[in-house]
Amino acid sequence: MSFLDNIKSPEDFKKVSVKDYPELATDVRAKIKEAVGTYGGHLASNLGIVEATIALHKAFDLSQDKIIWDVGHQCYTHKLLTGRALDGLRHNGGVSGFPKPSESQFDCMTSGHSSTSLSSALGLARARDLRGDKNHIVAVIGDGALSGGMVFEALNDFGSSKTKAIIVLNDNKMSIAKNVGALSTYLSHLRASGRYRNFKRNIKKAVSALPFFGDTMIYWTQKAKDRVVGALWPSNVFESYGFKYFGPFDGHNTEELIATFSRAKKINTPVLIHIITQKGRGDADAMLRPDEYHGVSPKTNKKAVSYEFGAALGETLSELAGEDKRVVAVTAAMEQGTGLTDFASRYPKRFFDVGIAEQHAVTLCAGLATGGMRPYFAVYSTFLQRAYDQVMHDVCIAKLPVTFCIDRAGAIGADGVTHQGIYDIAYLSQIPNMTILAPRDLSELKAMLKWSINFDGPLAIRYPRNTKLEASGTGQPNGFVGSWVIERKEVSKNGGEKYIVAVGSRMIEQAMGTKGATIVNARSVKPLDTKFLSSLKDNDLLITMEDGVVRGGFGSAVREYYSATKSSQKIITLGYEDSFLDDYDVSSSLKSAGLNSDSVQKLLDECDQM
Amino acid sequence: MSFLDNIKSPEDFKKVSVKDYPELATDVRAKIKEAVGTYGGHLASNLGIVEATIALHKAFDLSQDKIIWDVGHQCYTHKLLTGRALDGLRHNGGVSGFPKPSESQFDCMTSGHSSTSLSSALGLARARDLRGDKNHIVAVIGDGALSGGMVFEALNDFGSSKTKAIIVLNDNKMSIAKNVGALSTYLSHLRASGRYRNFKRNIKKAVSALPFFGDTMIYWTQKAKDRVVGALWPSNVFESYGFKYFGPFDGHNTEELIATFSRAKKINTPVLIHIITQKGRGDADAMLRPDEYHGVSPKTNKKAVSYEFGAALGETLSELAGEDKRVVAVTAAMEQGTGLTDFASRYPKRFFDVGIAEQHAVTLCAGLATGGMRPYFAVYSTFLQRAYDQVMHDVCIAKLPVTFCIDRAGAIGADGVTHQGIYDIAYLSQIPNMTILAPRDLSELKAMLKWSINFDGPLAIRYPRNTKLEASGTGQPNGFVGSWVIERKEVSKNGGEKYIVAVGSRMIEQAMGTKGATIVNARSVKPLDTKFLSSLKDNDLLITMEDGVVRGGFGSAVREYYSATKSSQKIITLGYEDSFLDDYDVSSSLKSAGLNSDSVQKLLDECDQM
Repeated sequence: MSFLDNIKSPEDFKKVSVKDYPELATDVRAKIKEAVGTYGGHLASNLGIVEATIALHKAFDLSQDKIIWDVGHQCYTHKLLTGRALDGLRHNGGVSGFPKPSESQFDCMTSGHSSTSLSSALGLARARDLRGDKNHIVAVIGDGALSGGMVFEALNDFGSSKTKAIIVLNDNKMSIAKNVGALSTYLSHLRASGRYRNFKRNIKKAVSALPFFGDTMIYWTQKAKDRVVGALWPSNVFESYGFKYFGPFDGHNTEELIATFSRAKKINTPVLIHIITQKGRGDADAMLRPDEYHGVSPKTNKKAVSYEFGAALGETLSELAGEDKRVVAVTAAMEQGTGLTDFASRYPKRFFDVGIAEQHAVTLCAGLATGGMRPYFAVYSTFLQRAYDQVMHDVCIAKLPVTFCIDRAGAIGADGVTHQGIYDIAYLSQIPNMTILAPRDLSELKAMLKWSINFDGPLAIRYPRNTKLEASGTGQPNGFVGSWVIERKEVSKNGGEKYIVAVGSRMIEQAMGTKGATIVNARSVKPLDTKFLSSLKDNDLLITMEDGVVRGGFGSAVREYYSATKSSQKIITLGYEDSFLDDYDVSSSLKSAGLNSDSVQKLLDECDQM
Repeated sequence: MSFLDNIKSPEDFKKVSVKDYPELATDVRAKIKEAVGTYGGHLASNLGIVEATIALHKAFDLSQDKIIWDVGHQCYTHKLLTGRALDGLRHNGGVSGFPKPSESQFDCMTSGHSSTSLSSALGLARARDLRGDKNHIVAVIGDGALSGGMVFEALNDFGSSKTKAIIVLNDNKMSIAKNVGALSTYLSHLRASGRYRNFKRNIKKAVSALPFFGDTMIYWTQKAKDRVVGALWPSNVFESYGFKYFGPFDGHNTEELIATFSRAKKINTPVLIHIITQKGRGDADAMLRPDEYHGVSPKTNKKAVSYEFGAALGETLSELAGEDKRVVAVTAAMEQGTGLTDFASRYPKRFFDVGIAEQHAVTLCAGLATGGMRPYFAVYSTFLQRAYDQVMHDVCIAKLPVTFCIDRAGAIGADGVTHQGIYDIAYLSQIPNMTILAPRDLSELKAMLKWSINFDGPLAIRYPRNTKLEASGTGQPNGFVGSWVIERKEVSKNGGEKYIVAVGSRMIEQAMGTKGATIVNARSVKPLDTKFLSSLKDNDLLITMEDGVVRGGFGSAVREYYSATKSSQKIITLGYEDSFLDDYDVSSSLKSAGLNSDSVQKLLDECDQM
């Protein structure tokens, strides 16, 4: 029987004695591997933080203390220790892969996007102080999330108010794949120095090579250093922000961590505890190739590699880069996920992974474009939300030729509510000067990319991960803007024609599963194909389908178009209604929104009967 | 005759001899004061950077080198030295108050929002390297803008690639008003130490108090320090990111700055030059009270103080704070502009100025709300764009009771295209769980705020700076959500009724200037008053008016509502069309969008004739 079987709450966990923690850790790892093997999920990051999570649960009292997990890629142990068995992980009816307050009182903040935990922690800590309470607030943040700028906005505010809270920096030397950026070099610096724990030893070692220095000299050197250096400026970045820094500690030494966390509780200012963990700990494969085992698909226990649109993107950009020296690619810590691995190795000088930093990525592209390059920013729909202002302020006002290659557009499946890519059409189409395309298949994506090299303005191309549609051969490579394509023609037998105008691969696929309507590939999301729209007769029926929100989306733009011309066009706009899509399965999402073939067929049949 | 009269281009500037720079600086200051006095504008920040700008123009060759001005509050000298006389500053037909590439080839990047310059600079620098060019890229950024997280995203990327560029940190010890945050303390630290320029002197001074230390000892101490400290970790935040740091320098010593910039040109890695300037230099009033002279109104040369909605906000929040301990207020460096000065002094422990850091501000509010507080984030419409993702991910998914008090909503006037507050209705209304209100007058804002204290979810209240409308007395204090109010009833003489549904004070004011229609105060922007909408007859005409973009806006939502019920409602949606509003005057903006009384009257008359 596993220790975990008896843990239904933090109270149950407290009954486990410290000497049994190693065995508990083994049980936890087995459970995580089993759940990820069955359901898919984040493996390496969760395996790395087992001991640290046990230590946090021991050192803190979760009936009042709050632990915030940045991003949430590392919360499985926490879920297990708070009585959630990871059943149905990332599936409808099961447990979320991210912290979720509606799932458990022990998940205090929603997360999924990166670098928010320090801001949340400061809010909770200030609220605690205003209430006059004494509970502890802990934020656990990975070194990868440090590249996100809002962490520094929070550090600045934190250090200024000196509000009591504990930040655990979980340094596994990796973001999702390898870490990038100067700060990661800096952290390796801190790791290598081990200065804070072994200050005197280091001094001794360093000065022993110098003449005249005995123990007395070492004493005085330290004194002098304290006066000259320490007194004049703080000794590391976190101390510069007013944090007390402790570390680095071995993140797998549970007893040392418990002692450290317990000491930190007594400090009345912000504290940063730097722990070193091993991503994928306890799993040979995941330890050796943690990037491949960051996200894992069900059953096979191997990373899903079928990013078809991403692969087509990478291939085409590499091809373009060979022909045109202006082509550069930018990613925000998603080299593999967006399909740029091959590009990165073939054109390392023209590939920029900026870390988890979408704001910077977009404005960097603005600079690159101003400097004469043709930047392609490959990004997930949900993460581009971070740079809404930069897209408008830095790219679109100046009408710069930056192409946004927006992957994971539409319903997202297992990552759930925080990651749905269903807002991009709405938030991008309201920005002037923006052109938005959506390819029906891989071949059309390639054609769009090749065409884009000569397009002189901001461009967004959105697509989901995969497609089942084969190339149609009906595309008109050089006329994407404002031009739709008839996918399938069906003449109505009784009265007005019926048109389904579908945006992108997934919607066209569903539309093609119906009978009794002409299907249109609305590959130009903005601007609309006004020639097509104006050709419709009053008694024709127009159904729009988009894998995005109705409010302000594509269908809404179609309505706005007709408003200026005639108000009598019969239009039905299909898409997601105005509530968060808390759903872990794409098919289920489509069905509940009436976006699958069956629902649309039913709608067509009803219209026939009217 | 002023030196400036002969400067029509950077070439003309180069003809001025260095010995005449002090006189040129005097001319520039006089011109800036004259222009700001006549047209209004940013005074103190522009007066502070005159010498540094002259030095930059001398040290660099603007025919190829690029200077990026962060935010742009300091670009007037640059405009003058590139042949723009500040005529019609911030007025239609005149010169923009911010850098604007469409205005001059010497303004290389659009700016207006803060903290973007390092990202732009890195893009330009990488493009230069890829082109194989050798020109210099300079970014000038104030210490206030350092609180914006994207600066650190850029530093991280910059330091990692070691791309050559020069960052000038213009440290005037202030943001817009006083600087906040730990980093500003840190900068004062750097300023006080002066270590980098006077390293040996400091060492000597510091160790002279210790026994046994003569010059030899100082030598060895420095050696030891270099090995122990310097070799183990970088000595300041910027060096941690891989920058070479020089400074601090006197930002008003033109010759020293020219020499420093010239030396920096020879360094092939990123360099940060820290200069100290005095905000408001050369104007006694502006030096003494630089925050009051940050933005100045025309003629009076004094800061405009008529922020009527802001004043009402501050007053009401103070009142609420007195009654309810949960009330806290947050601002991102806009304490005065959003009307919170009095609140800040009355409730310092419940007031949080986080610096220019909107992302953090929003997630901080999420934490505060989770901790039981009722946070009010007072922010300008255009700056809330920075936190689009945080509004969705951190506040709205969890349905937290955070109230966004959105000032400067609608057309913005003199700040121009980068600051237009015309997108918030569109970008907020597509976020589920968000409620949006717009008060018709100050009294209605107060009522909304008092009511909001018991509203359990995310709430946005948007308003422009001022209003001419007096309280109507028709409000229903406890029924704002989904409830509109008839502002004026007019029964049509011929056929269907005409309704103008107007959002907010400014639109209602314009609507009231027309005759022949019933005017409705659409104070609940989201959700809509469906009871009202469903009561309309087919032959009634509905005109919506919003001080925002049509695409995805309020009128668009009204259309979407009718689509679900009947498609035959006659609707005209008025608002800004899908192009950037490059206009410096509110009246002109309203007129060109057909949002003023005359245009709407004309529309009503035309409808009568049909």
